[in-house]
Amino acid sequence: MAKNLTRRDEDYSKWYNELVVKADMAENSGVRGCMVIKPYGFAIWEKMQAELDRMFKETGHQNAYFPLFIPKSYFSKEASHVDGFAKECAVVTHYRLKNDENGNGIVVDPEAKLEEELIVRPTSETIIWDTYRKWIQSYRDLPILVNQWANVVRWEMRTRLFLRTAEFLWQEGHTAHATEKEAIAEAEQMMHVYADFAENFMAVPVIKGLKTESERFAGALETYCIEALMQDGKALQAGTSHFLGQNFAKAFDVKYATKEGGQEYVWATSWGVSTRLMGALIMTHSDDNGLVLPPKLAPQQVVIVPIYRNDEQLEAISEVAKELQTQLRDKGIRVKYDDRDTQKPGWKFNQYELQGVPVRIAIGPKDLEKGTVELARRDTLEKQFVKREEVVAVVEGLMTEIQDNLYKKAVGYRAEHTTTVETYEEFKKVLNEKGGFVAAHWDGTAKTEEQVKNETKATIRCIPIDSDNEAGSCMVTGKPSKRRVLFAKAY
Amino acid sequence: MAKNLTRRDEDYSKWYNELVVKADMAENSGVRGCMVIKPYGFAIWEKMQAELDRMFKETGHQNAYFPLFIPKSYFSKEASHVDGFAKECAVVTHYRLKNDENGNGIVVDPEAKLEEELIVRPTSETIIWDTYRKWIQSYRDLPILVNQWANVVRWEMRTRLFLRTAEFLWQEGHTAHATEKEAIAEAEQMMHVYADFAENFMAVPVIKGLKTESERFAGALETYCIEALMQDGKALQAGTSHFLGQNFAKAFDVKYATKEGGQEYVWATSWGVSTRLMGALIMTHSDDNGLVLPPKLAPQQVVIVPIYRNDEQLEAISEVAKELQTQLRDKGIRVKYDDRDTQKPGWKFNQYELQGVPVRIAIGPKDLEKGTVELARRDTLEKQFVKREEVVAVVEGLMTEIQDNLYKKAVGYRAEHTTTVETYEEFKKVLNEKGGFVAAHWDGTAKTEEQVKNETKATIRCIPIDSDNEAGSCMVTGKPSKRRVLFAKAY
Ligand SMILES: [Zn+2]
Ligand SMILES: [Zn+2]
Repeated sequence: MAKNLTRRDEDYSKWYNELVVKADMAENSGVRGCMVIKPYGFAIWEKMQAELDRMFKETGHQNAYFPLFIPKSYFSKEASHVDGFAKECAVVTHYRLKNDENGNGIVVDPEAKLEEELIVRPTSETIIWDTYRKWIQSYRDLPILVNQWANVVRWEMRTRLFLRTAEFLWQEGHTAHATEKEAIAEAEQMMHVYADFAENFMAVPVIKGLKTESERFAGALETYCIEALMQDGKALQAGTSHFLGQNFAKAFDVKYATKEGGQEYVWATSWGVSTRLMGALIMTHSDDNGLVLPPKLAPQQVVIVPIYRNDEQLEAISEVAKELQTQLRDKGIRVKYDDRDTQKPGWKFNQYELQGVPVRIAIGPKDLEKGTVELARRDTLEKQFVKREEVVAVVEGLMTEIQDNLYKKAVGYRAEHTTTVETYEEFKKVLNEKGGFVAAHWDGTAKTEEQVKNETKATIRCIPIDSDNEAGSCMVTGKPSKRRVLFAKAY
Repeated sequence: MAKNLTRRDEDYSKWYNELVVKADMAENSGVRGCMVIKPYGFAIWEKMQAELDRMFKETGHQNAYFPLFIPKSYFSKEASHVDGFAKECAVVTHYRLKNDENGNGIVVDPEAKLEEELIVRPTSETIIWDTYRKWIQSYRDLPILVNQWANVVRWEMRTRLFLRTAEFLWQEGHTAHATEKEAIAEAEQMMHVYADFAENFMAVPVIKGLKTESERFAGALETYCIEALMQDGKALQAGTSHFLGQNFAKAFDVKYATKEGGQEYVWATSWGVSTRLMGALIMTHSDDNGLVLPPKLAPQQVVIVPIYRNDEQLEAISEVAKELQTQLRDKGIRVKYDDRDTQKPGWKFNQYELQGVPVRIAIGPKDLEKGTVELARRDTLEKQFVKREEVVAVVEGLMTEIQDNLYKKAVGYRAEHTTTVETYEEFKKVLNEKGGFVAAHWDGTAKTEEQVKNETKATIRCIPIDSDNEAGSCMVTGKPSKRRVLFAKAY
């Protein structure tokens, strides 16, 4: 069935853009750089949110909400933060419009100029630590384990749906601790939570690691991250967790009275994932026929399509279909029965394939006679006839099987596209010809990192946590290296 | 136990402000007019959101997300809309900051001026209908039943936590229909959904009705609303649902091909409730001791507090408390066991009373001996000793009983404070001495409505749907009136 979808090997980037739009996930809006997340895309995001939110709460976090606007002066308070942020952002300067005196519609009222400009939050450390000062007096008030689901804005010149947009949705955790040790444990914990989520729900394998100094978040002493590999051999940073030390506490003067009666600055972390995860999900699993969704995040896990020539047939099929729907729902499976008469079965097959519904069941008059249904898997595109009385068990099994299969496939792809190299020549060759992660020795200097980036466009994605500390010499300078780091071109 | 909370009869407004802050629900931020919703307040809002979201989905709606920013020109497209909105709002004029050349921190980069200013959405009809133009071609694409959970900004000079803030959280439903009839049915349905939610979850009785022309939403042909009565005799509009006719379809050129091959403009509705509901919830039930929450929306429905002098006692009590906690949780009841040693029992009692936890259970050494617990109801402040083996059943019963009691109390208050009057003299007397809803005849003109508002500060809250069409004469002008309308001073 033709979907007019560009093939991945033709133009991966075009394939992605078309897929996002054709599968009804998102589209560009009339506002430069801002996307509209359509109901189908949003339903997937909601599933992600629900799981993440549950995981955050299970690890003791609570949600709260902080202002959208941040006074400009707040950004100047943490020196390294202002350098990394607050440059490309939306600035509110006025608070009123008025009717133009010359009848040219509405204009900004020049008399309604703000004394201090407000920045639409690009991230909320500053406004939150300004608030924490009021919340924290004593060790009794610690830890504060707060998360916020919010929209943020970072003015971007080149945008791509989900991957880089001026406005995006995310969650940002902001925690306050009495000790350095606790704060580091929190930052590490959240990296593991993100990795669990990516692997067990998104079926996206990730590398856990530390960012190099030059790739760290503005204001962080350490940035933990999870890195995924897309089908075009480019890496995608899927989540970050920052140990912020006492930087924000010092900038906003947040101290606490210790049990012993002293005064100490508070230790901080922040961590976030965004609608960018949608991009990672799409690019990890989808194929030339469209989206492929892991069952755990699919808004509809099963769709049932009736195939009929007349009302009598539809009635007989609907009876079986609705019974099946009830039985599957009783097992906790999300099932849609699509008996719309405004669209033909072929159109529906096409649409659900494009939208990545994990299992499609078709029922026609012959199936009724034989007591079977036709069942199609989205991940492998395999079809099989299944006896009516076995459908529920087969579908239940498929929910796990498809989830596992997608994960294994992605792990396999990553294994194939992770290369260990010894020389810079080899490094460049692999990057150009094969892509993927390249594990190489690096001398630990920002200078060498910069040189590699300029010459190859590859960056150090992370210093992996789960790998051997095998020493060697830097592929560029030959200087000693304690361990290999992972390079890749990245989104 | 002293809470330093102003009494309602001393100063209702002060009582409210203090309560919101002391019960840890919200506070003012460093950004004028923007509040911080603290974890406890947000947990209540999340419960509201979850129920509303479920109700929206059960009535066929899906969530989506539209841009935060709206180009200024969009507001000019619907004439009546621009008059009612888009005047007091946050205007983004620049997209970059830079380091000041004279070393004065960061300043707005004058070279990064937007060609067209962007308005931070005060409501999203314009951007959504600009999008719907792309989504709607044929009758097959209708209806569109979409909701969005979002933050919106309306610049307000005098703000109050939850009741009126520059930024607030809300949901806005935006639906598109093939026929007028369907759109009206949708707008009415959502008014009923809001009323169900208010009465069955918030335990807040509401009057369903229509707004008069002058109180309608900018751009609406009809505004349906639910109106609640607060304990100070003032009304609060808790939700609105608008039948927008074809106004936005015409302004944004949204037509559809009918089954018969014609071209028609699409019919629209929009409907919303906001964090203002938090204000309604607080003001309906709370007392001089603090917040009172209906069990269905309480983040914690039961709190268990141990009373002990030494570790041995705590250990013995904890065993009983944890078993009880498990048993209650098995019944779906949200229970917290607060065994923190950083706070005394008296402090905890005070705190949970202030925060409106519906049931408090205290267990001390004597309770262990006797096989009892002490149980306190927040709504009536009654205490009783309950046998250990009966606690679960008693608490389960109380969840329903407290929910019902709060609703009945609020219905009783409203009945006492709804007065039918015949003359304008009587009207003014009731308004001044008793407050509440006043049912009176009105001649249907905006002029009389305006006069009453100017002379008494009372507005027509609504033309109630569920009341008799008893004719009479206007209390002000003596002209004929088809039915009584409800007046009140309002938030
Ligand atoms: Zn990494
Ligand atoms: Zn009303």
